[in-house]
Amino acid sequence: MNTPIFNCVTVIGPGLIGSSILRRIKKDRSIATHSVAYDSNPDVCNRVKELQIADEVCFDPKSAVENADCVVLAIPVGAMEEVTKQIIPYMKKGAILTDTGSTKASVIAAIEPHLTPDIIFVPAHPMAGTEFSGPDAGFDTLFENRWCLITPTANTSQEGINKITTFWQTMGANTRILAIKHHDKVCAIVSHLPHLIAFTICNTADSLEEETRSEVLDYAASGFRDFTRVASSDPTMWRDVFINNREAILEMLARFTEDAQAMAKAIRWKDEDYITETIQKGRRIRKSLIDNKQVQ
Amino acid sequence: MNTPIFNCVTVIGPGLIGSSILRRIKKDRSIATHSVAYDSNPDVCNRVKELQIADEVCFDPKSAVENADCVVLAIPVGAMEEVTKQIIPYMKKGAILTDTGSTKASVIAAIEPHLTPDIIFVPAHPMAGTEFSGPDAGFDTLFENRWCLITPTANTSQEGINKITTFWQTMGANTRILAIKHHDKVCAIVSHLPHLIAFTICNTADSLEEETRSEVLDYAASGFRDFTRVASSDPTMWRDVFINNREAILEMLARFTEDAQAMAKAIRWKDEDYITETIQKGRRIRKSLIDNKQVQ
Repeated sequence: MNTPIFNCVTVIGPGLIGSSILRRIKKDRSIATHSVAYDSNPDVCNRVKELQIADEVCFDPKSAVENADCVVLAIPVGAMEEVTKQIIPYMKKGAILTDTGSTKASVIAAIEPHLTPDIIFVPAHPMAGTEFSGPDAGFDTLFENRWCLITPTANTSQEGINKITTFWQTMGANTRILAIKHHDKVCAIVSHLPHLIAFTICNTADSLEEETRSEVLDYAASGFRDFTRVASSDPTMWRDVFINNREAILEMLARFTEDAQAMAKAIRWKDEDYITETIQKGRRIRKSLIDNKQVQ
Repeated sequence: MNTPIFNCVTVIGPGLIGSSILRRIKKDRSIATHSVAYDSNPDVCNRVKELQIADEVCFDPKSAVENADCVVLAIPVGAMEEVTKQIIPYMKKGAILTDTGSTKASVIAAIEPHLTPDIIFVPAHPMAGTEFSGPDAGFDTLFENRWCLITPTANTSQEGINKITTFWQTMGANTRILAIKHHDKVCAIVSHLPHLIAFTICNTADSLEEETRSEVLDYAASGFRDFTRVASSDPTMWRDVFINNREAILEMLARFTEDAQAMAKAIRWKDEDYITETIQKGRRIRKSLIDNKQVQ
């Protein structure tokens, strides 16, 4: 067997993403010889113990990170600063700190001021997930054929980038290096805005008069159903994403609202050409996605 | 075997919905002894012949409907008036005319003026579909456990309602009688607005600068991917739906836009409670849908 990428990987926050990493390590020891899990919620720690998906479960941050060559922060982006402050004093010299946050500028701003020079920080974002959350929701193939975007800072060493690249590729992901701001903009449109819209339309439906509302539930056709799938994702994670990438999200929402108003105008004035063209553009994008193999 | 519901059913427009009806009849002769397909596009007629999903394929409206006990208009709602005018003169006395349109007030307004007193018109809307269209897209279980909403007019006879109710129930659907205007309002929020939003967000993505746009395709995470599925539906059908249910759709879009702006404000001002509450409402709706067995 080749030398594993890491001797010891610690996952902080063994939820959907974190527990999937742990499960993958159990299955493929070329990633790490030893895995450690820690969560600030002892119930989560106990559940991870029961599931036997980590080699070791710690109930305090110090013992969780002190032997780790790599610490993965798989927690809501709003918790990154607090947890970084807790662990940095106990991390080994030369260890890698990485994260799985969906926003990068804010996470880097939260973590960098607390770093010591001997820690290599490699910001990353695996673009994978389901509408479920918690340690039971993970599975070892979650990252297969998904993108993991790596957004190095000016201080990230090439060695750190290489190791985290191999880490994610070994878990089945395709990796790419992206500029921090660019990452946040792309994710605002492909992921954050769709979630914001899905949450919103569920609320619009919920605020209808009682009679209509109960029927919305009865007759939810495929359109609404797909939206609610997106809308059932983890509240804390998404609250943090919205607040932490608010600039890019608000810009994309403004653009979307302009486009929606243009569509409303076309519908009101029965502008068939405009409506058809808009729909056809949507289909073309769908086709591109299929050609890019992002969908079955 | 019991007496079939109809001797001869003619499906006009053997696309996703129409060809699924034809396939179901082939499988279950208690629905109809004989099935006829007609489409204004001869290529579609020829394809239906090749697929062997109808007992008879006609290339003109007269021969298609003259023997039918029941004619099903499974065409875009914008084509209802024109096709009704073509077929009414040739329909048998006492035959049932029904449709599968997603908007009901506009379809009834398009069809009623052309009816003769000896034709029983039963407006209906099977709430089923996929993102695919055309005769190849149908399948005989499309309507199973889906709703079919029946919206009788003042002139619809109880016998007609009963027959069409049995027709859809035999194809596996659950049926319910709904007031016309109420139907259009409920569908505006559960189906039409989600489609409008999905088409729009694809356009917003498409109008980004070239560099970002190509990455949108690369990194489309599950949020955007689900939206494009909805957005790949048939353009003519949806253009017609938007225009024909424009009052209800514009009202729902206005409500949605208010809610989206309230969310934008909360994000800008970091109103964590408001954001979390909005997300949690979305999850509750999702949970209700699961309890209602509209989703797996």
